[in-house]
Amino acid sequence: MINKLIEKIKKTKAPIVVGLDPMLAYVPEHIQKAAFEEYGETLRGAAEAIWQFNKEIVDQTFDLIPAVKPQIAMYEQFGVEGLEAYKKTVDYCKSKGLIVIGDVKRGDIGSTSAAYAVGHLGKVQVGSRTYAGFDEDFATVNPYLGSDGVKPFIEVCKEEKKGLFILVKTSNPSSGEFQDRLVDGKPLYELVGEKVAEWGADHCGDTYSYIGAVVGATYPEQGKALRKVMPKSFILVPGYGAQGGKGKDLAYFFNEDGLGAIVNSSRGIIAAYKQEAYAKYGAEHFGEASRAAVKDMIADIQGALEAVI
Amino acid sequence: MINKLIEKIKKTKAPIVVGLDPMLAYVPEHIQKAAFEEYGETLRGAAEAIWQFNKEIVDQTFDLIPAVKPQIAMYEQFGVEGLEAYKKTVDYCKSKGLIVIGDVKRGDIGSTSAAYAVGHLGKVQVGSRTYAGFDEDFATVNPYLGSDGVKPFIEVCKEEKKGLFILVKTSNPSSGEFQDRLVDGKPLYELVGEKVAEWGADHCGDTYSYIGAVVGATYPEQGKALRKVMPKSFILVPGYGAQGGKGKDLAYFFNEDGLGAIVNSSRGIIAAYKQEAYAKYGAEHFGEASRAAVKDMIADIQGALEAVI
Repeated sequence: MINKLIEKIKKTKAPIVVGLDPMLAYVPEHIQKAAFEEYGETLRGAAEAIWQFNKEIVDQTFDLIPAVKPQIAMYEQFGVEGLEAYKKTVDYCKSKGLIVIGDVKRGDIGSTSAAYAVGHLGKVQVGSRTYAGFDEDFATVNPYLGSDGVKPFIEVCKEEKKGLFILVKTSNPSSGEFQDRLVDGKPLYELVGEKVAEWGADHCGDTYSYIGAVVGATYPEQGKALRKVMPKSFILVPGYGAQGGKGKDLAYFFNEDGLGAIVNSSRGIIAAYKQEAYAKYGAEHFGEASRAAVKDMIADIQGALEAVI
Repeated sequence: MINKLIEKIKKTKAPIVVGLDPMLAYVPEHIQKAAFEEYGETLRGAAEAIWQFNKEIVDQTFDLIPAVKPQIAMYEQFGVEGLEAYKKTVDYCKSKGLIVIGDVKRGDIGSTSAAYAVGHLGKVQVGSRTYAGFDEDFATVNPYLGSDGVKPFIEVCKEEKKGLFILVKTSNPSSGEFQDRLVDGKPLYELVGEKVAEWGADHCGDTYSYIGAVVGATYPEQGKALRKVMPKSFILVPGYGAQGGKGKDLAYFFNEDGLGAIVNSSRGIIAAYKQEAYAKYGAEHFGEASRAAVKDMIADIQGALEAVI
């Protein structure tokens, strides 16, 4: 799957991922109205609205991008019905040839991590049959519990040729509270990065490892250091756009081959029609606004890469 | 909710919580067979089997215990259908008067943590109406992202008078890999513990805070240190029984008032019928085996507390 991701990045010339994190507030009135007319102002109605919203964005952007990253929390807030919309979104994106990074940030002790791994990346045994519960291609994982919380995910990834992005240095303002604390003179995120490199050595594709890392666009200096610590790990970079990260900050996250990172934008793409720059599309044509925003993001990142590499 | 938890612990004299973490392998043949006959060997069949299994255990133990802790991963592995069984279990336990600790170990950046908080502990807005997606009473939270990943949960807890247990020192063998690393001479788990105390000061019940901590029974020395760092925080203690923690190790997790901790056992209770000590009940009467195991666990912990306090 890491080989496929790289192939698709090369083909689209777009090392980006669209974050499908639908808040109801992003969903245009006409979509909400249609969904509520069909299912009422219910959890099912909300789930239908975010599904229809996602579908249009995917239809308008799938040919430009290699991957999407649905944030499961935005679905989970609508309970079981929301998670049905998550599953529908995962399946639909895969049917369009997109790679799906499930932003689930799971992580637990061994046997419990194994259950998450099976549910999101693998297959669960039911009597004599097996089923894939959510079936994403990659998942994000929280490392706080250490190796025996991460390794069950890696085991399933090996079986399924799938991959992980492990939280190393997150994009939020208070990520430094624990992640930046010095351990033997090194910040904790660097220790986690070293572990990611170690775990990744155990499960490699042709040029990069299946085990990647999450490092926020909002921390370019840390990205630069971590790029060296984990040379074979793909870095998933959130925080571009709405959270403040800019194209020029991103060059640090890439290797000299122009690869090694994939930059996520969520709000900046999916709610593009609400921005002044794309207001001309109007809420009716929100999907076209997203398409224009994707093209602009690709140009911004290509520009930043060309300036350095 | 922390007041209600304490009241129920006093009434039952049982500072314990039953972990509803059903693996299909724990579910007796006759339950699996009935579920598969109704729904086939499908995800729905598996979900039905674990729900029927849970229901019998709850029916046999609810009068002895204050709380249950369903581990959502064990349901999530069966996809959307599994999560329906999770929701059914949460609702049923609440209808029996039990406090439900959702062992979800969520945690993300601010707006995403807010979505998880709303989905598990709060209410989500859909048009002019609000709905509770999963509606547990407490949730476990991962602190790796720092304050702005945790505070959205606390905000929802304040509105709903609900609570959290934040991962501080987990019960698994490799928990020390990051959690024990020294920062300014102190282990990281102690820094996290200090933050739990700080966050908790902001949301207090009558005698204890709504913001508790997770500290594994397998680390009694660390439990002793953390008890002092977070005097007002309830400690949720996993790792008793199957993971190796013993009654006598647990006294350290309690305060002198005999309160301040709640000990979880999962496999040891729900799969009790598979242990030699309870084999006489047989798979047919697995619920009665669980009841006997709960009584033994309560006696073990009461004995350990009486020996010290």
